[in-house]
Amino acid sequence: MRLLDFFRSSPASAPAAKERLQILLAHERAGRKGPDFLPKLQKDLLRVVAKYIRIDEDKVSVHVEDAGGVSMLEVNIELPGHMAAARR
Amino acid sequence: MRLLDFFRSSPASAPAAKERLQILLAHERAGRKGPDFLPKLQKDLLRVVAKYIRIDEDKVSVHVEDAGGVSMLEVNIELPGHMAAARR
Repeated sequence: MRLLDFFRSSPASAPAAKERLQILLAHERAGRKGPDFLPKLQKDLLRVVAKYIRIDEDKVSVHVEDAGGVSMLEVNIELPGHMAAARR
Repeated sequence: MRLLDFFRSSPASAPAAKERLQILLAHERAGRKGPDFLPKLQKDLLRVVAKYIRIDEDKVSVHVEDAGGVSMLEVNIELPGHMAAARR
């Protein structure tokens, strides 16, 4: 899981230009146990991003993992290429 | 700029355990010109994160760059290790 792999996954020559947005969150907890807040934070973040761009929930993929005291959240969003920024 | 470099930047043997949170956003714009929304989004993101954890503004570093049609926003936050999640 690395930033920009999401972008590289489609051929550069694809005729239908798409916009993509990737959000990565990594939280290193120093000793504190218990559930992490990243999954809850995810919904709030998408709500904030949706103020700037229109998001189709079908085009959102979310991946959460927890390893070595670091919780990671990856959100990939595909946006139609013709889409302008949503009006606030 | 790579996810987890922020975490690796401190020696693993550091006696004062710290919590860290890293947020990376990458926005690939397909042909659309004009200013990106990431810098504006940054403040909203921090406001959302602050609902979950207390943030000391002195411990927040932000980096924005724009290259090859991809805008990237990197936010690194250091949290005191003893800090529990803020009550909502």
